[in-house]
Amino acid sequence: MKRWLSGSVAVTALAALLGCAGPALEVAEVGSFHVGGRSVTLAGLPEKELVFTPGAPPLKLNPNGDFEVESLYAHYTRLAHPKAKVPLLLWHGGGLAGTTFETKPDGNPGWEMFFLRAGYDVYVSDAVERGRASWARYPEIFKSEPFFRPKKEAWELFRIGDTDSYASDPAQRKALPNAQFPIAAFDQFAKQSIPRWGTNDAATQAAYDAYVEKVCPCVIVVHSQGGNFAFNSAAKYPDKVKALVAVETSGSPNPDTFDYSRVKGVPMLWVWGDNLGKFPFWGRITAQQDKFRNNLVQAGGTGDRIVLPETGIYGNSHMLMMDRNSDQVATLIDRWLARQGLKK
Amino acid sequence: MKRWLSGSVAVTALAALLGCAGPALEVAEVGSFHVGGRSVTLAGLPEKELVFTPGAPPLKLNPNGDFEVESLYAHYTRLAHPKAKVPLLLWHGGGLAGTTFETKPDGNPGWEMFFLRAGYDVYVSDAVERGRASWARYPEIFKSEPFFRPKKEAWELFRIGDTDSYASDPAQRKALPNAQFPIAAFDQFAKQSIPRWGTNDAATQAAYDAYVEKVCPCVIVVHSQGGNFAFNSAAKYPDKVKALVAVETSGSPNPDTFDYSRVKGVPMLWVWGDNLGKFPFWGRITAQQDKFRNNLVQAGGTGDRIVLPETGIYGNSHMLMMDRNSDQVATLIDRWLARQGLKK
Repeated sequence: MKRWLSGSVAVTALAALLGCAGPALEVAEVGSFHVGGRSVTLAGLPEKELVFTPGAPPLKLNPNGDFEVESLYAHYTRLAHPKAKVPLLLWHGGGLAGTTFETKPDGNPGWEMFFLRAGYDVYVSDAVERGRASWARYPEIFKSEPFFRPKKEAWELFRIGDTDSYASDPAQRKALPNAQFPIAAFDQFAKQSIPRWGTNDAATQAAYDAYVEKVCPCVIVVHSQGGNFAFNSAAKYPDKVKALVAVETSGSPNPDTFDYSRVKGVPMLWVWGDNLGKFPFWGRITAQQDKFRNNLVQAGGTGDRIVLPETGIYGNSHMLMMDRNSDQVATLIDRWLARQGLKK
Repeated sequence: MKRWLSGSVAVTALAALLGCAGPALEVAEVGSFHVGGRSVTLAGLPEKELVFTPGAPPLKLNPNGDFEVESLYAHYTRLAHPKAKVPLLLWHGGGLAGTTFETKPDGNPGWEMFFLRAGYDVYVSDAVERGRASWARYPEIFKSEPFFRPKKEAWELFRIGDTDSYASDPAQRKALPNAQFPIAAFDQFAKQSIPRWGTNDAATQAAYDAYVEKVCPCVIVVHSQGGNFAFNSAAKYPDKVKALVAVETSGSPNPDTFDYSRVKGVPMLWVWGDNLGKFPFWGRITAQQDKFRNNLVQAGGTGDRIVLPETGIYGNSHMLMMDRNSDQVATLIDRWLARQGLKK
């Protein structure tokens, strides 16, 4: 632990040891908004009988009418005296919401607090269909059924344990030997799971674009499934996206056809955790992301990369922002952003 | 407007006029957590074919496994130097989530910011099934289908306009003559709508109880459908709930059988907006709430009531915290809480 104690990490670690949260933040405003979306009218659907209390007679409800759908929700904390030149936007991944970046499942401060303490105005969003962005009736508005991620899938897909190392009984679960994820908090993490659809990409992209238009210039820190949306938004608004940090991004626009000239002025950083080689799924993901990054660099863009174990930092899961050393990883991102000239 | 300019309201109004948000808040921490809920195992469900991209071949997904369900989500802002003796919890109503209390649909600060500026640590929650608390597969876990509130229903039920005064075209909508609700922001408000179920009351109550156990002593400010849950939690934890403010609460435990002796030491305040007499639905609601309140007072409890038009404040909708004069209403609540000895 001592090895990586330096700068703001040392202060945070010391504050944690002393049982205090560090100095107060000077906050100008906390707030939120919905952005994007559209009005939809449903007509001709039959009345539905709904039972409100088991045993009680059903009530008839008319499901027709006008609805607002497909907007994005964002919560922000604006500092009185930010040290960063632009706000930092945290974009979550698949089957999750903005909670990804708030307090960690083990109860310790997450990346939202880290970047606030580092002097950024921080925005945490829920994409279309997730969390406070809400979801719409299907198949009339959303075009397919949602799916729910079982805990076993999260345990394996997020590289907390090997394939078939999950057990219903927490005591029987076998984590990867060097796991930084706080294993005892895994079920608490699973409470953050949110159903997802496979058919809402266009609506999600439109809402993210409206979000960038509303709040940027900004920096986007994007995780996992969010990557594809962030790369597209950066290409659409290259003057508004001052940097893009791709944290274990799992998707991108087609690397062979993407117009990299659009984002030559948007510095990008990829950050990868540990144990990627153990999972063929992650091998395919990183290969595609590396292709995108290499093409970007060859086109004259900035495409940096931090593979944590190559820097001596081991055991990070896909959920880097919840791992025990999340501040250490965030410190690397903060320093890279400073090197892009984005701190005052 | 001048009439009600006094104290913190005057400061807020002045800050708004000057185009600034007032002095910075000294914030110790922003954070969040999920609380309550349970693990459920689904087995024996058939694999499902899901189409992710229109035209692409369907993917087979196994919907079985373990899931965390029925927890509550809470977001908090803790001040470095609170002026209130206990935190203030904001509980939302039906078909909505914690966003009710954040920035108002017209973009102005809502009750979350008001009570932070008034010196309270503020907690904003999403109940089971709503927002970041997430929802579970039905009918296997949740026992019925969800329903979605059309804009017309919200327009009428929340007393923004008369019955049949809603139109799809915003320009054609007829608001009540004295409406305090910012009509131009109605569609923005509708983006906050969240599907609800009629069969989750027991799970919702259990999660609220777990929430009170975790974060109280506290004050609960509860809106509309949330009332029933707050009255029950107060009866279960009368030593932890230091006061309960029932804002247009639409439900309560059975007034004839409720054990009022449990909550004799929990001061309660009911707050009502305007135009209640125009709607038979609201007549029935207020009659039941008044019965509950009268029984409480007769049993030796504190059951105060503010009917805004009786104090010269007109035009408030069911969504008091989003109305143009929301700070004025919140000021009355803050003063009542101070009279209960809950400020330092």
